[in-house]
Amino acid sequence: MEKVDIAILGLGTVGQGVVKILQQNEDKWVNKCGARINIKKVLDKDLDRKRDVTLPKGVLTSNWDEVISDPDIKIVVEVMGGIEPARTFILEALQKGKNVVTANKDLLAIHGDELLGTCKSCSRDLFFEASVGGGIPIISSLKQGLVANNIQQVMGIVNGTTNYILTKMSKEGVDFQAALKEAQELGYAEADPTSDVEGLDAARKIAILASIAFHTRVKLQDVYVEGITKISPKDINYAKELGYVVKLLGITSEKDNMIEVRVHPVYIPANHPLANVNDSFNAVFVRGDAVGDTMFYGRGAGQMPTGSAIVGNIVEIINNLHSNTNGRLSCTCYDSKQIKPIGEVTTKYYLRLHVLDRPGVLASIAGVFGNHGVSLASVIQKNTKDNYAELVVITHQVKEKDIQDALKVIGEMSITKEIAGLIRVEEE
Amino acid sequence: MEKVDIAILGLGTVGQGVVKILQQNEDKWVNKCGARINIKKVLDKDLDRKRDVTLPKGVLTSNWDEVISDPDIKIVVEVMGGIEPARTFILEALQKGKNVVTANKDLLAIHGDELLGTCKSCSRDLFFEASVGGGIPIISSLKQGLVANNIQQVMGIVNGTTNYILTKMSKEGVDFQAALKEAQELGYAEADPTSDVEGLDAARKIAILASIAFHTRVKLQDVYVEGITKISPKDINYAKELGYVVKLLGITSEKDNMIEVRVHPVYIPANHPLANVNDSFNAVFVRGDAVGDTMFYGRGAGQMPTGSAIVGNIVEIINNLHSNTNGRLSCTCYDSKQIKPIGEVTTKYYLRLHVLDRPGVLASIAGVFGNHGVSLASVIQKNTKDNYAELVVITHQVKEKDIQDALKVIGEMSITKEIAGLIRVEEE
Repeated sequence: MEKVDIAILGLGTVGQGVVKILQQNEDKWVNKCGARINIKKVLDKDLDRKRDVTLPKGVLTSNWDEVISDPDIKIVVEVMGGIEPARTFILEALQKGKNVVTANKDLLAIHGDELLGTCKSCSRDLFFEASVGGGIPIISSLKQGLVANNIQQVMGIVNGTTNYILTKMSKEGVDFQAALKEAQELGYAEADPTSDVEGLDAARKIAILASIAFHTRVKLQDVYVEGITKISPKDINYAKELGYVVKLLGITSEKDNMIEVRVHPVYIPANHPLANVNDSFNAVFVRGDAVGDTMFYGRGAGQMPTGSAIVGNIVEIINNLHSNTNGRLSCTCYDSKQIKPIGEVTTKYYLRLHVLDRPGVLASIAGVFGNHGVSLASVIQKNTKDNYAELVVITHQVKEKDIQDALKVIGEMSITKEIAGLIRVEEE
Repeated sequence: MEKVDIAILGLGTVGQGVVKILQQNEDKWVNKCGARINIKKVLDKDLDRKRDVTLPKGVLTSNWDEVISDPDIKIVVEVMGGIEPARTFILEALQKGKNVVTANKDLLAIHGDELLGTCKSCSRDLFFEASVGGGIPIISSLKQGLVANNIQQVMGIVNGTTNYILTKMSKEGVDFQAALKEAQELGYAEADPTSDVEGLDAARKIAILASIAFHTRVKLQDVYVEGITKISPKDINYAKELGYVVKLLGITSEKDNMIEVRVHPVYIPANHPLANVNDSFNAVFVRGDAVGDTMFYGRGAGQMPTGSAIVGNIVEIINNLHSNTNGRLSCTCYDSKQIKPIGEVTTKYYLRLHVLDRPGVLASIAGVFGNHGVSLASVIQKNTKDNYAELVVITHQVKEKDIQDALKVIGEMSITKEIAGLIRVEEE
């Protein structure tokens, strides 16, 4: 095999990154995978836009038929994004006997079943390392390097935009809106930041990681999601005072054959490896029964880091082509564990309440918590203006539905002005 | 293929870890690699010692011939350690058509050439993930996940004993001897700690990582090595004062086709990802031209983490057996770059000098530095007792041989009592 022909679908930011990496030192690919990698076709609907890369004449096309009908093309790299036509193109490519690399987390988190099922029935490879954690080889590490382990927990900072915003709020004391504005100006956040700041992007990624870690298909709709829009500078300051850092985490764990999977802001101890992951960096913390605690850190997005993961997958497929094999790493969901409803999830909580500053109030509130089985680890009371006090509570482990019931009662009491903050606390 | 027969050489701590992992949930291996994994033989010279694991009758043997002559055994796991007979056993196993997994960094750093050459000529696999970073999948990440990159730099905390000692010295202000004693009492350091505290263990590991990162065989004798025995609590306190942390790092990088490879204590900025890796944890920081900065963190030693890496390699070989392939990840040293002599290496330096506390001394010393092209970034002078002052200097980038020449002159000056500390500073 002297050369392998590939096609790239989409010549946007990531597509151009893939081209750049493949065009640099073209000779080295022969050493790295025993073949030259030839970009035979690049599909994009816009043939005229000015781009950073130059392709030989005849490579760029807007006609899908030129790709799908070319029997020489062994690998199709889908970096167009979105659901359609990406889904159809991937399915057709697999059915035509081509292998596929995709970075499309939106598609995988919704149609993973269909895509991986088709991949299996067609005996081809479908790799998607770039869909989570950008350049960090977290998927291959879970599937290969850590395969000996029963994974117990995966916790990840898997969205760079929200990590940038929270780092900014923490270091400079600015509020969410100001930090978001700066993230937008720097290109870290999109004009419509909903998918990032509401936790949806992180939810797609933790669904993919949960599926791999626990060998059970976990979909986007299985994930409990809360974003960071309600985090106030006060919550961040109390975190510091109490020895924590606020991060948006995707968390998934398994216990008694039940899977927890959720995305929400977290108080994490300041000495936890994830606590020092700042700015737009991503990191995934994995706990396995044999390996113990591990963490994988790097750039979760961007043209070149994403390109690094995609080209890594291309090389892996070429290695498989050399040995005429496939399916080694495709779908590993051989199990079907139950998803635990969020109401049954147990964790600790940080709560910030505004209550009337008068005798007996603390006793009343503590009484409600007690009646609902919520045991308090610490309480800080600070006097604020206008006869109201700020009550900051850290609970012991408690079931989500118990604390929600307690807060419902407290919220309706005349002594309560506002339940101003609720952040779950993750520690040993 | 219903089952794969394997043999384990050495039933010490790590060997027992491998047995434990393979015996837990035996069924799951069929899901994970399409075959049961059967421990057919375990070789150990001591047949009677009490151990944590139970093996079926007839499995434990002290007779190598029972292993090497058994054609059913497809994989040999070498966890005896040391050079001989491990080297001979591995060579014989490969020549008999068996695949090999080893954790033996001592052997690889010296005889890597011979072992990987034999592996190639016999068309078998020789995997060694556990030889660096224990359970952290750093070798497979460099060879696969990051394969798209030209690696620019690898820096690792790859020795848990010295990281434990330095963490202890930093957090509790104790001196080296006290921290070493505690590490020995806790089993983190051996009775003869030389290999760890003098940096030799880290040197073997960085030689292996450099070989993989730069596709060039780097041997133990190519590595410049300095241990941590001369680090004083004063050096650690000045690090804090100046915004650094002291770590023992293995460092390797490539520039202009020359490889730097060295192990020594380092002042690293307190906000660098490696600075927060504490206690006996390991971490490897990798900078690639596409992926940017990444870091891989976890337990660098211990029965179960090491077992995790070994069993990961066993599963990988079984996948290769299924597709009748091998050699995908064996030797990747297709290049032969030069090693840069340590005298030519350029870095910044922290220096701590005891000099006479009288007018003109600072000017004399600064003059010597200037004559040797050593430019100073900062100087702190503190008065100490007996008419001597402590001079703490951070230099700009300078060549090793220039600073050594300057220090030779300074050391011979009558105003100099002692060159009390020299630690290289690694930052952007």
